[in-house]
Amino acid sequence: MEADLPSLYRLGIVGAGQIARMTHQAAVRLGITPKLFAERLDDSAALAAPGVVFSHPDAIAAFVADCEVVTFEHERLDVGLLQALEQNGNLLRPGLRTIRPAFDKLHQRRLLKSKGFNVPHFTEVVGPDDVMDFASQHGYPIMLKTVRAAPPGQRGTWRVEDHREAMNVLSQFAELDLMAESFQDIVKELVVVLARRPGGHLRCYPVSEVSYTDGVCTEIRSPADVGSRLAADARETASRIANEIDAVGVLAVEIFLTTDGLVVNELAARPHNAGHFTIEGCPTSQFENHVRAVLDLPLGPTWAIHKASVTVNVYGTREDVDPSQHLSEALAVEGAQVHLYGKMPRPGRKLGHVTAFGEDIAEARLVASRAEAALQGRRH
Amino acid sequence: MEADLPSLYRLGIVGAGQIARMTHQAAVRLGITPKLFAERLDDSAALAAPGVVFSHPDAIAAFVADCEVVTFEHERLDVGLLQALEQNGNLLRPGLRTIRPAFDKLHQRRLLKSKGFNVPHFTEVVGPDDVMDFASQHGYPIMLKTVRAAPPGQRGTWRVEDHREAMNVLSQFAELDLMAESFQDIVKELVVVLARRPGGHLRCYPVSEVSYTDGVCTEIRSPADVGSRLAADARETASRIANEIDAVGVLAVEIFLTTDGLVVNELAARPHNAGHFTIEGCPTSQFENHVRAVLDLPLGPTWAIHKASVTVNVYGTREDVDPSQHLSEALAVEGAQVHLYGKMPRPGRKLGHVTAFGEDIAEARLVASRAEAALQGRRH
Repeated sequence: MEADLPSLYRLGIVGAGQIARMTHQAAVRLGITPKLFAERLDDSAALAAPGVVFSHPDAIAAFVADCEVVTFEHERLDVGLLQALEQNGNLLRPGLRTIRPAFDKLHQRRLLKSKGFNVPHFTEVVGPDDVMDFASQHGYPIMLKTVRAAPPGQRGTWRVEDHREAMNVLSQFAELDLMAESFQDIVKELVVVLARRPGGHLRCYPVSEVSYTDGVCTEIRSPADVGSRLAADARETASRIANEIDAVGVLAVEIFLTTDGLVVNELAARPHNAGHFTIEGCPTSQFENHVRAVLDLPLGPTWAIHKASVTVNVYGTREDVDPSQHLSEALAVEGAQVHLYGKMPRPGRKLGHVTAFGEDIAEARLVASRAEAALQGRRH
Repeated sequence: MEADLPSLYRLGIVGAGQIARMTHQAAVRLGITPKLFAERLDDSAALAAPGVVFSHPDAIAAFVADCEVVTFEHERLDVGLLQALEQNGNLLRPGLRTIRPAFDKLHQRRLLKSKGFNVPHFTEVVGPDDVMDFASQHGYPIMLKTVRAAPPGQRGTWRVEDHREAMNVLSQFAELDLMAESFQDIVKELVVVLARRPGGHLRCYPVSEVSYTDGVCTEIRSPADVGSRLAADARETASRIANEIDAVGVLAVEIFLTTDGLVVNELAARPHNAGHFTIEGCPTSQFENHVRAVLDLPLGPTWAIHKASVTVNVYGTREDVDPSQHLSEALAVEGAQVHLYGKMPRPGRKLGHVTAFGEDIAEARLVASRAEAALQGRRH
């Protein structure tokens, strides 16, 4: 493969949010300037990169034709269109074998189940009968979720306790493709971030553990507080999935640790929120390894430099609080690694993250949360 | 000061080489997109940043007027023009008190000498008589150097062994302002990189030691192999100079360790080649601390994460060798941090650098030099 790449590595990234912004930065270090495909002028990455192409996703074919290798920042793309592009000889990385299960959660569940991976019970929801049948078999509560990834800031999962609540969701979101899943008795939510080259060479990062508040991911801790045996199992599961779907680039595998053991939750075929600590916390960040992998360049080391890391996400709260206005207070928190994405603040919008390191999780968390509180203008 | 800064931190960087490229990246992490002032379309930073202003340096006033804070990547600017801009109320950081000695080496020497710092004997060279007088007093060899920084790739210092050689340089470079200096019996060349805020808060990085080959800096080691007493003296000297010239942003102080002790060589009022290891080697890179300092934001920690680091610079060799073509081989060197600046290769042009870390300098050097050799297409 390497010999086929042009000297300038004409890499395209579809999407221009913060994942693209950080991927772009990692590429620039290596002397590569990826071309970005953005939808809005104020997209996070579009603010920080030159020569951005602004267009509607339907116009993606022309963008792809102009790149040697194309990768993706998000899952809100037409799979049929991407398939046609791949069939026409465009080099999509990851390719359709990865994109299809990563973009379509129903397909993902079916595939993983058929390959023997432990996944929640699930069913497609075409109408109310599907929910009733599923509930009669597995009981409430059940999880309803969108088959395709929800746009940023929009909800994609609902825990429903009874039939009435389920019907509410179905009628309210009638236009969306939904699926139902059995409720998992979750002890911890783990994420394995790994990078894989076309030839199959693969490297896992230390397992992360994520916490959610009101349905959004608020804190990521690494290493996950699980035994080395469970961590190894999680990495093994993620690696097998990556090989199964021929992942290229970064693959993030979200895994529930339940009272019944490890259950695969979801896949993301791109750098992941749970891997932001790798920017300072590992010799090679997930973003650089994503760039390396999609260009079929050797992967860099993925071990943890520090004993413990905590990342706290920074979300928009009230309209009148702009974290960038509080940068000074946040930077005054010694050791906090502050990342802001350049976005206009809106309630619920992800505006940045703070990572901190320490001898243990508690020490790292103290620093990261103090800096996050400072960005929010809260006393800390 | 902080309260005076606008919400969007309208930061301008004059210059668009690799220093600006890496400073831009550090700013983007913090949610800030600096505006760059470039001279050529293929300037390193211009390839990786949006909204670059391309113009002749004489047109700098309009650029400065459009920024809230302006900083500088290089010294090839008209000091009189900058002084007028500062007097007109533009916020230059560093300001003229720093720019003047940093840009004019004769002024620098006079100032440092008058403040009691240990500098080489020196004299202004207006004509051959100045060299003869100086040589009769201090003997040959003497160093002739340009008062202003030489453009990248051009020579700025000449060691001359006798009068004939001196006259050769004078006649060949008659259009340049030159100065003469006594030859130093150099044991080691040290660099102290520090960052300083407007209020005077200052942080030093670990002292680096640099090696030159054929007049260009080829290797940077940190920590310098000097005792803790000498390292402390070097940091103390650099800090006193920073306070003396009211440095704001990064100041790099090049110090000779001679058989007669520490002698101040030169100052650079910007992130410095000898501080590139701070990108991965310290909690806050020199680039981020430069951004923080010029925006009067709190400085981040500057201690070394690893025991030893070696940076090897990557220069253009032959026309037909393009390091970006050998990226794959370089990335295959485990643990090498490869940075390429996106420049077209030309003999003598600085195209990138590689940093590596280890338990000791030898271990780090092995990795960095293998990766550099790989980039040059040499066997390693």
